[in-house]
Amino acid sequence: MADLPGIVVTGASGRMGQMLVRTIAASDKARLVGCVERAGHGWIGRDVGEAMGGAPLGVAVTDDPLEAFARAQAVIDFTAPAATVDFAALAAQARAVHVIGTTGLEAAHLAKIDAAARHAVVVRAGNMSLGVNLLVRLTQKIAAALDEDWDVEIVEAHHRMKVDAPSGTALMLGQAAADGRGVPLEGAMESGRHGITGARKRGAIGFSAVRGGDIVGEHDVIFAADGERVVLRHIATDRAIFARGALRAALWGQGQKPGQYDMMDVLGL
Amino acid sequence: MADLPGIVVTGASGRMGQMLVRTIAASDKARLVGCVERAGHGWIGRDVGEAMGGAPLGVAVTDDPLEAFARAQAVIDFTAPAATVDFAALAAQARAVHVIGTTGLEAAHLAKIDAAARHAVVVRAGNMSLGVNLLVRLTQKIAAALDEDWDVEIVEAHHRMKVDAPSGTALMLGQAAADGRGVPLEGAMESGRHGITGARKRGAIGFSAVRGGDIVGEHDVIFAADGERVVLRHIATDRAIFARGALRAALWGQGQKPGQYDMMDVLGL
Amino acid sequence: MADLPGIVVTGASGRMGQMLVRTIAASDKARLVGCVERAGHGWIGRDVGEAMGGAPLGVAVTDDPLEAFARAQAVIDFTAPAATVDFAALAAQARAVHVIGTTGLEAAHLAKIDAAARHAVVVRAGNMSLGVNLLVRLTQKIAAALDEDWDVEIVEAHHRMKVDAPSGTALMLGQAAADGRGVPLEGAMESGRHGITGARKRGAIGFSAVRGGDIVGEHDVIFAADGERVVLRHIATDRAIFARGALRAALWGQGQKPGQYDMMDVLGL
Amino acid sequence: MADLPGIVVTGASGRMGQMLVRTIAASDKARLVGCVERAGHGWIGRDVGEAMGGAPLGVAVTDDPLEAFARAQAVIDFTAPAATVDFAALAAQARAVHVIGTTGLEAAHLAKIDAAARHAVVVRAGNMSLGVNLLVRLTQKIAAALDEDWDVEIVEAHHRMKVDAPSGTALMLGQAAADGRGVPLEGAMESGRHGITGARKRGAIGFSAVRGGDIVGEHDVIFAADGERVVLRHIATDRAIFARGALRAALWGQGQKPGQYDMMDVLGL
Repeated sequence: MADLPGIVVTGASGRMGQMLVRTIAASDKARLVGCVERAGHGWIGRDVGEAMGGAPLGVAVTDDPLEAFARAQAVIDFTAPAATVDFAALAAQARAVHVIGTTGLEAAHLAKIDAAARHAVVVRAGNMSLGVNLLVRLTQKIAAALDEDWDVEIVEAHHRMKVDAPSGTALMLGQAAADGRGVPLEGAMESGRHGITGARKRGAIGFSAVRGGDIVGEHDVIFAADGERVVLRHIATDRAIFARGALRAALWGQGQKPGQYDMMDVLGL
Repeated sequence: MADLPGIVVTGASGRMGQMLVRTIAASDKARLVGCVERAGHGWIGRDVGEAMGGAPLGVAVTDDPLEAFARAQAVIDFTAPAATVDFAALAAQARAVHVIGTTGLEAAHLAKIDAAARHAVVVRAGNMSLGVNLLVRLTQKIAAALDEDWDVEIVEAHHRMKVDAPSGTALMLGQAAADGRGVPLEGAMESGRHGITGARKRGAIGFSAVRGGDIVGEHDVIFAADGERVVLRHIATDRAIFARGALRAALWGQGQKPGQYDMMDVLGL
Repeated sequence: MADLPGIVVTGASGRMGQMLVRTIAASDKARLVGCVERAGHGWIGRDVGEAMGGAPLGVAVTDDPLEAFARAQAVIDFTAPAATVDFAALAAQARAVHVIGTTGLEAAHLAKIDAAARHAVVVRAGNMSLGVNLLVRLTQKIAAALDEDWDVEIVEAHHRMKVDAPSGTALMLGQAAADGRGVPLEGAMESGRHGITGARKRGAIGFSAVRGGDIVGEHDVIFAADGERVVLRHIATDRAIFARGALRAALWGQGQKPGQYDMMDVLGL
Repeated sequence: MADLPGIVVTGASGRMGQMLVRTIAASDKARLVGCVERAGHGWIGRDVGEAMGGAPLGVAVTDDPLEAFARAQAVIDFTAPAATVDFAALAAQARAVHVIGTTGLEAAHLAKIDAAARHAVVVRAGNMSLGVNLLVRLTQKIAAALDEDWDVEIVEAHHRMKVDAPSGTALMLGQAAADGRGVPLEGAMESGRHGITGARKRGAIGFSAVRGGDIVGEHDVIFAADGERVVLRHIATDRAIFARGALRAALWGQGQKPGQYDMMDVLGL
């Protein structure tokens, strides 16, 4: 046990943070060695397992990330852009792999992460699930193999609380289709059809968004020609897959050269 | 054979007209006794089977609808509003059942069809397939049985040439869901989601339109709650189902009292 | 709070028992007033919430069912046939509604439950989810409405640990289709196709079983005719729906006349 | 027109033969230059278009394959093993590309086709559709990328007249999954689950066969892990795709070196 890679979770009290804590605690390939929350948070100093309403896990929540990172081989971070930029510098200083699932990063944030990645291993991805990353890669290859007689449509379904459409993952898939065809996505996108739309434009990439219940996330990439269709589908039924993907990235990053990687690298796709 | 109900097809040269001709000619429950086209059409006087590029069927295309209707027990009519209004009067005069699949009828047209239906049997429906009509009826019943914890979403897919969204059948399904809940569809409809939509409104009925290839028509009615979903799906793979539904309506209409009916009546739903 | 119906959970330490405890504790329509386990179980005397690894819930686990039932308005019971028969007699004695989700009940067990139902309300169902029960009812109605030109196929998918095929719910659906057609299921069933099967028999009801991952349960009832299909689909993504259905049955049973009921009664289908 | 590649169709009166005739006649990339049937067939000497019940196509059906092949650049052949072996020798003699969609070929037949392929271009495939061949290739790649935590299940649906299960295409897909994993298919195959099956075996490749209506052919390859699934789906709605695939193979074969090829070569997958 003692020589398993030690992992720190940032933002440990959030929904994704708690999922990460449970996933690492249950793994036989890694140890949970630290949990970070912001100064003043009610969990600081408490055992993270008890704070989550369960059995103790032997790890107290801290507001000192550097101290925690220094004892770890990797940091998993689904927080917010400003915090992630700070963590990137500290993780690099501690020579810990930094796995970033934070969304909403802008150019200024990315520049700082790039700087950190000169000295340490950073793995960053918009969706950490193995299945989705596989789908992105396949979508690009199929779009490159098929001509525009095959109409591309992306249909995604998410829970009723989701506030935007299409989903970020749907856009990743659409971008992959556009890349495969060698065209910019902007010109090809048809999203939100309603009313008199006219016939479908040749080469268009269509998007539809279904919202209902507590659907975790489902994505279809449809290639529709005359007389036949190929559909790539991903169904997520448990948010734990994102935590498991992040843990896999943390383990993969051990021993890699400094630099910035994505899940395609982790998965060897 | 001679005592099977005799059927006339109007607009016989059109895509749906030809489908009707083939369907009736192949049926062992009805006879094709007439084919009508507008005066001056190139098929007038020709055998309809030969005009369609096949073997002769023993029926010459005529531009005299009344003469044709007088020899028939039913008229099947997928033409245009103005023609359909004329055919309704002539069919009533000939005491022939008038099966109307024409779309785009407005209030003035409907008033004239109502008048004809005082003296004759009229069956009119936006979609003649047994399966779709079953789906409409089920949608209403389920929407009445389930509360608004079950989000309703309608997803339809059609060929790339379709110029409007949602499809007429999707709107029928949405109307059925709204009827089941006892609310007007207009206030509940969420169609064409794109951008920052905010969370789904409670009680909303969502619509999504997929376009691609030569898809004949697929409709999903999704009822999505926390932890479970019920989906009603109709898949049409052959336009012949619309012709078979119309023929079934023509046969059902024999011996009914004058009046206006729809496919629910025909199917006993 | 004090006048909300009080519920007892039997077999509280099992997977379904724990799910019931969590569901009732989270409900604002009922109170958890007792948890029963067999004599000698390690949880006896402990707070059930703490025994489940979480926060205390103020209810100690007991091995005295009658004492617990006497304080309750309903008992929810997903245990085993022998225990359920005993609980039925005790619940009747305590005039508590008995909700039975136990499977594998045989004629001798059912006779004893019938006896108890003379004096108390019993609700018993093979699947407590609202959606599945709706699907069963719809399947029967559609099978009655459609003739044998519509081939019925039932496809179910479950997790990799499931040891039998088809699932009990698939068999319920098949039975509903057979009932709708007025034929016995045994003569119509085609399950486990492999090898040279010959053409499909007219009137057959086919079954297919997919096994993989941790799929909670998915059922498709397909009605396939020439040119079109109607599909009824149920997707369960969270076992909590079975607990919520049982709680709904417990609440519905309050004030009903003694007798035996099923989820169709509860749901008003 | 005159310099478009000339194509001969063997077995022209069969369902697939007629589909090929129509496809080639409608193409602007090839010319129909011959139609072959066996000696004594009623169509010999007749115009093939008229024999099919349509307009004349200017090609008389012949029972002399060598004469027909000598005027052609390619032969498309969906007949029977014995005939196909003869046609392979004649096509090689005429230096025409031989596209073989015939199924049921055994070792002895394949040896003779190998011999012919020393002198001429032969393209042979169990399924000529672009989409299915793409699916086969993707299935192999995904199976190689994912470990056995991802359970593989293949579900196929076909019309009610199909006499065997699983379909040949399902077996191709299963073989591709087995190849990707580097295991023999025989040991991994679980087909026709029914009764007490026990839990799913790790590494199993499952098969399910749905039969109903006039479904042309649908194949799902499901990779199911805990919390997520990836599904590859192919839907065929028109048998013309097999004819178009064969024509594409015939055109691709022009100018290739002698040898035996499959649709992967044709499609550049």
